[in-house]
Amino acid sequence: MLKNHDVDISGLEIVEGEKTFSYGCVYRDDMNIRDTLFTDLNVFEKFDPVIPTEMRKSPFLLLGNIMPALQLKVLDQMTDLKFSVCDTMNLWIDITREDLLKVIKRVSLLVINDSEAKMLADESNLIKAAKKVMEMGPEYLIVKKGEHGALLFGEGKIFSAPAYPLETVFDPTGAGDSFAGGFTGYLAQMDSIDFETMKKAVIYGSTLASFCVGKFSTKGIENKTKEEIENRFNEFIALSRV
Amino acid sequence: MLKNHDVDISGLEIVEGEKTFSYGCVYRDDMNIRDTLFTDLNVFEKFDPVIPTEMRKSPFLLLGNIMPALQLKVLDQMTDLKFSVCDTMNLWIDITREDLLKVIKRVSLLVINDSEAKMLADESNLIKAAKKVMEMGPEYLIVKKGEHGALLFGEGKIFSAPAYPLETVFDPTGAGDSFAGGFTGYLAQMDSIDFETMKKAVIYGSTLASFCVGKFSTKGIENKTKEEIENRFNEFIALSRV
Repeated sequence: MLKNHDVDISGLEIVEGEKTFSYGCVYRDDMNIRDTLFTDLNVFEKFDPVIPTEMRKSPFLLLGNIMPALQLKVLDQMTDLKFSVCDTMNLWIDITREDLLKVIKRVSLLVINDSEAKMLADESNLIKAAKKVMEMGPEYLIVKKGEHGALLFGEGKIFSAPAYPLETVFDPTGAGDSFAGGFTGYLAQMDSIDFETMKKAVIYGSTLASFCVGKFSTKGIENKTKEEIENRFNEFIALSRV
Repeated sequence: MLKNHDVDISGLEIVEGEKTFSYGCVYRDDMNIRDTLFTDLNVFEKFDPVIPTEMRKSPFLLLGNIMPALQLKVLDQMTDLKFSVCDTMNLWIDITREDLLKVIKRVSLLVINDSEAKMLADESNLIKAAKKVMEMGPEYLIVKKGEHGALLFGEGKIFSAPAYPLETVFDPTGAGDSFAGGFTGYLAQMDSIDFETMKKAVIYGSTLASFCVGKFSTKGIENKTKEEIENRFNEFIALSRV
């Protein structure tokens, strides 16, 4: 599937005989909160990421949600970073906080959801929590709020992005990854990165996430055309235009 | 205080010797959910609202949150309505649903919060819930989402308004009333009412609500100048502008 989409998978490593990473959760009725049932690291337990030489020069990096110690190993190998994005989750805030703080200090942007922001900052007011997280080091912060959209913080400004009004949320799994991928992918195409560019990137990320949750697994996004993406992007813009 | 603000209180009725309406609740940590402790109707139990003759011709009506049977009595007295707004709460959805449905059928716009919309429609997806509530009769619907802003539905369109990023929510009591008042007050000044006008009215309502929650009781809004209101309105617009 990735090859068919011209994705460069030369850095993909397949370890024989190991169980894949496995994660189980239950979504609550409103699909906004999920309760973790189990997290089995399996193959990730001994994983030592090696970035192919030609990829180390990439100016853009998206650190997917994984153990912060592994994110640090990836960061250490990158030589020409212009903009780096870090995703994480409640588990790492809980059990590997110190490593996570090291990552956060070194990336351009952290993307987390609202409950994680409150947990990381130990603060129940989301705006105060966001300010405290910004003090931990990242230049920019995105707080995802599920069906309530997302907030972008940085340069002393705040941008509030709406959520797409979905009547059916089939499977929220992967929405965060789709968001981070859509966001970073858009930025990587741009010549300059500033707050205005990032606002659009947030809407592109939200666009991808809105497609993702409509079907199971990657089915919602893997065959979307550029036209479909642009159309939904424009619908997003219209949603909050005054 | 009302007289000092040139508010026409000629329709205000004071009943001697009766206890005032009394309501108690506890706000949860995030200030988004409140748990009702008690609702003592007291003076409202036998209240029979009589609208002064000259006020019956008012083209705009805001039915504050009260027993739907009383809202109906007010509606019955109005002769020249152009636009009517109805506020309500979980209590009336729970114990006087039939009366409430009669009110909803007759007003131009219903304003409720997200949990009330889900409760009224018996539907956990907010967008589906909103569609079901629209089928109950009102031409327009506003769903307030506290720290997540508000949604306006009508004319087959949706508008998503951001929330003002407040670091301190001192007292959320009255935020809904401030919203409904700011919303209806703005509309009442306009020559024509359409979806675009209503979008701005939502932002004015949000502006008033954002002032309200900053101080106890009515202290946050009662001395705001037009300039302060316009400034915050513009900040709201900037929050979600792409």
